[in-house]
Amino acid sequence: MVIDSSRMEFPIWVQAKQQYIEQILDQVLPSPDIAPFKLHNAMRYSAMAGGKRVRALLCYAAAELCKTEPKIADAAATAVELIHAYSLVHDDMPCMDDDDLRRGKPSCHKQYDDATALLVGDALQTLAFETLSQPQLCDQPHQQLHMLHILSKASGSRGMAGGQVIDLDSVGKPLNQIELETMHLLKTGALIEAALLLGSVGASADKANAIQKYAACMGLAFQVVDDILDVEADSTTLGKTAGKDAMSNKPTYVTILGLDAAKLHAQQLHHEAIAALAPFGNQAQRLVELADFIMQRSF
Amino acid sequence: MVIDSSRMEFPIWVQAKQQYIEQILDQVLPSPDIAPFKLHNAMRYSAMAGGKRVRALLCYAAAELCKTEPKIADAAATAVELIHAYSLVHDDMPCMDDDDLRRGKPSCHKQYDDATALLVGDALQTLAFETLSQPQLCDQPHQQLHMLHILSKASGSRGMAGGQVIDLDSVGKPLNQIELETMHLLKTGALIEAALLLGSVGASADKANAIQKYAACMGLAFQVVDDILDVEADSTTLGKTAGKDAMSNKPTYVTILGLDAAKLHAQQLHHEAIAALAPFGNQAQRLVELADFIMQRSF
Repeated sequence: MVIDSSRMEFPIWVQAKQQYIEQILDQVLPSPDIAPFKLHNAMRYSAMAGGKRVRALLCYAAAELCKTEPKIADAAATAVELIHAYSLVHDDMPCMDDDDLRRGKPSCHKQYDDATALLVGDALQTLAFETLSQPQLCDQPHQQLHMLHILSKASGSRGMAGGQVIDLDSVGKPLNQIELETMHLLKTGALIEAALLLGSVGASADKANAIQKYAACMGLAFQVVDDILDVEADSTTLGKTAGKDAMSNKPTYVTILGLDAAKLHAQQLHHEAIAALAPFGNQAQRLVELADFIMQRSF
Repeated sequence: MVIDSSRMEFPIWVQAKQQYIEQILDQVLPSPDIAPFKLHNAMRYSAMAGGKRVRALLCYAAAELCKTEPKIADAAATAVELIHAYSLVHDDMPCMDDDDLRRGKPSCHKQYDDATALLVGDALQTLAFETLSQPQLCDQPHQQLHMLHILSKASGSRGMAGGQVIDLDSVGKPLNQIELETMHLLKTGALIEAALLLGSVGASADKANAIQKYAACMGLAFQVVDDILDVEADSTTLGKTAGKDAMSNKPTYVTILGLDAAKLHAQQLHHEAIAALAPFGNQAQRLVELADFIMQRSF
């Protein structure tokens, strides 16, 4: 029996999709019994460490809205989560953010070692592209190529990796809000947008445009909420070291705008994101719920 | 006027192709005037540092033999060189081989810093997949997808990155020749094979099979020669720190077989590679010359 997941209550849907993406990752990641064992174990340690799977959820919600084929949505969600996982592994390394905790567990380089963490990140990135280039995924190979191009553009030097460099260079520097937003649009926004665009691949230009607007707002809102959480949450709730940004003298929405204005800014972005979905009527309910879900991480 | 490069004398052809791939990389790498400037400068520093461009040469030679469209061969050669460049940047980092010299210049993390080198490697890998997924590269998109799949499989945990892990874990351990070959088939062989397969994409199964045999032999021969060079050449000739493997107690063909037997092994692989090209008759002259070229690096 095929379950119509679009009719599930939101918390049930979230839980179902979170469990489902873990299963898909379990299938896609090389078995820990295949050599090189240490690398394959470490890749699983990092990519299957749970988390909210926000990017996969956004991808699946867009896929439900646009009636994207399930196997395409699976590959897209997996690829985006693999890219995200790789970025976290490298981001935690001593030469970057030097963070010992990730999702409540020792980060990859602490559990293994720096060289393994470096190669885990490298191989997770490659696996994202291997997953998305698998033969016979799409009836229309040009659509699959388009997905690969979206993901690579979002992840590279003019996307996520570029945002990381700007982030590192900004430590101790006074940024204004526009500079901060540029950084986060690349660092976090690009991959969140990619998750939504990949989920809605094949949608009409109108629909894709609306989703892109929603994506741009939610990509930023996500980061503003992250900055608020860094101040308000403790390490146990957060699953990573809290107060890290302030300690390392990084500019954040909270340091630039102040806590109250940062919260207000997040709410404004949230409203704009919802407004962008108007053309879909109540069909976009899942994306509305996800926008609320992302906001509720902090409030 | 279109120049038929298949009629050039070999040294002229090599030089022409080496210059040509630098021009293509110059076009593909983001301009240093585009933000983030430091990252884009560092990517160029590492990817345009010259070198023999053996992988690109193998790719172009296979492309000439199989009459692959020039723009497809360009994208393939570029993507393979970008993957190779990323692997060198990460390989040189302190947590890996900790090498200060690369092609006679400070390695990326010495010229910039560790965090930049990490992100340069990450972004070069992504750019390889972006290059190969560019719209309208092939008339047949499924062929382009096949190329992306070949490159991702060759680069990932069951290819190049996996070989790196085995290499790191082998320091100070006694390996036998079969274990050493397994490691090098992944670490070096996989990408050399990919260069040849990408260049010959669209070739008949018979031709692809012959090229694959040649690739397997040359992938290993390349590494045996590398191990011999590490012992025999000095750092200036080599452009990287000589004697590094011995110092770091790494098993090599020379430590396992001895210098003379290692040279003999390289020659045997060389002969096998040439023999695999028999079905092509004298059409495969360029690949024969390249096999000689790779061998002559040391003898």
